Amino acid sequence: LPASPEFDRLRIVLVATRNPLNIGAAARAMSNFGFSHLRVVNPYEEAFREARSGVGASAVLTRAEQYTTVAEAVADCTLVVGTTAGRHRELQHPLRRLENGARLIRKQLASSRVALLFGSEKVGLSNQDFSHCHWLIRIPTREQHISMNLGQAVAVCVYELVRKAGAAPEPEQASKKPGDKQPLATACEVERVTAMVVDLLRASAYMSPSRAPATEEKVRRLLRRLKLSAHDAELWLGILRQIAWKLSSGHS
Amino acid sequence: LPASPEFDRLRIVLVATRNPLNIGAAARAMSNFGFSHLRVVNPYEEAFREARSGVGASAVLTRAEQYTTVAEAVADCTLVVGTTAGRHRELQHPLRRLENGARLIRKQLASSRVALLFGSEKVGLSNQDFSHCHWLIRIPTREQHISMNLGQAVAVCVYELVRKAGAAPEPEQASKKPGDKQPLATACEVERVTAMVVDLLRASAYMSPSRAPATEEKVRRLLRRLKLSAHDAELWLGILRQIAWKLSSGHS
Repeated sequence: LPASPEFDRLRIVLVATRNPLNIGAAARAMSNFGFSHLRVVNPYEEAFREARSGVGASAVLTRAEQYTTVAEAVADCTLVVGTTAGRHRELQHPLRRLENGARLIRKQLASSRVALLFGSEKVGLSNQDFSHCHWLIRIPTREQHISMNLGQAVAVCVYELVRKAGAAPEPEQASKKPGDKQPLATACEVERVTAMVVDLLRASAYMSPSRAPATEEKVRRLLRRLKLSAHDAELWLGILRQIAWKLSSGHS
Repeated sequence: LPASPEFDRLRIVLVATRNPLNIGAAARAMSNFGFSHLRVVNPYEEAFREARSGVGASAVLTRAEQYTTVAEAVADCTLVVGTTAGRHRELQHPLRRLENGARLIRKQLASSRVALLFGSEKVGLSNQDFSHCHWLIRIPTREQHISMNLGQAVAVCVYELVRKAGAAPEPEQASKKPGDKQPLATACEVERVTAMVVDLLRASAYMSPSRAPATEEKVRRLLRRLKLSAHDAELWLGILRQIAWKLSSGHS
C-alpha cells in the first residue's frame, strides 16, 4: 500500500471491537484515505477472524496486527490519542475537538508514530484504556445523539486527518470546473442569442408591435442575467435555430 | 428533532440504495450531526422496509420520505449537489472538493433548501441522476481506493457540513450583485422549464428518437448551469409556452 511517510506513521487501534462489519468498515475507510496500519486489541476472536477472512477483505485488514493489551498496541508510538463521544468525563485528560486534535496529530506524524484509539461499540474506551492516552478527541456530534457508529467514527477521523493535506494546491481540480472556468460568451455572442429569441417571439406573436421595443429590452436583460459561457451560447443558438426553422417551415 | 434552521433545510437523498444497513447508517450519521430530513429514491423495497422497521430505527429513518424519481425528490430545493468518487467524469459539471462544496452548501442553506445526493453502492449516481445536479462533490479519497462505503460517505459529508458551524460565523458574501439577491428557482421550477424546452425540441425534430435521452440530459444540464432566479424561470416559461403554442397551431 503506497502511503505518504506521515500517514504511514499512524496506527489506528480498535479496542475490544465486537462486530466484524465494523472492523471491516474501519479498514476500508483507512484504505480510502491512505492509512494502512490497523491494530486490534482483544477483539471478539470470532469477529476478527470473520472480518479478516471475508471475501474482499482489504490489504489493510489482512495485515492487521493483533494485541492483547493496549500497552503493547501503542508501545512504539510517541503520542497516544483516545476518542470519546462523551463530554463530561471526569478524567484528567485534555479533551479536544476533532479538528484541533487532528492538527496536533499531523504535526506529530511528521516525525514519529501516533496511535489513535477507538473503543468498543457498546461502552467505548474504558478508564483503563484512557490511562494510556495523552489526550482525547471528541467528534462534534450533537448532545441528543452523541454516539456514533464505529466504522463511521473512524471514517470521519481519518478524513479529518487528510483533509488539510491537499488543502493548498489541488492541481487536478483547477481544470475540473468546466462550468465555472469556461470562458464567458462575448457580448456579441450573447446578442446573437438575444436576436434569435426576439425573432422567435415575433414569429410567435408574443410581442405586440407596440410593445416590441420594451419586450426586446426585457429579453436582452434576461439573457444577460444568465451569464452564458461561450460554449453554452453556441448550444442555445443551435437549439433556437432549429425551433425557428421548424416554426417557419410549418407555415410555408 | 431539534435542529438549527439551516440544518433543517438540508435534504439527504439516497438513490437506488440496496443495503438496508447503509440506509440505517446514513440516518444515524445524519442524526449524530443534527440533520433530520432523509429522502430515498427507488430503494430496494425490501431494504427500505427492513431498515425502517429495524429495532432502534432512528427518528430520521422512520420519517424518511420515499420517491420514485430524483426530480420529485429534489423538487423543492434550489441547489442540488451530487456526490461522486470519480475524478475523470466527462460530464460538464463543476467538481468540487468536499470542503469547498460544503462551504457553498452552507451558504445556500442560510436561505433555502439544498439536496445532497448519494448513488447506489454498486454504481453510484447515473448520468441521468447527475443531470439534475448543479455541481458535484468529491470526497478526497486516494486514487488507488476511491470508492467509499455509503454510510461512511454520508457521515464524512455531514461532518464536514457541521465542522465549521462552531467556528467564527461566516461573513455574508460581501459583494453580492443585485442579480444574485433574487431568490433562486426551485428544482421543480427549473425542471418545468427543462420539460418545455425538451417538448419544443421534440416538436422541432431536433432530437432523433434514438438520441432523445442523451439530448434530454444535455438540456437538463444546460438549464441548471443558468442558475435561474424564480422570477426568470417564470419569464422563460411564458416565452417558451408562447413558442410552443405557435408551433402547434401552425401545424394544425
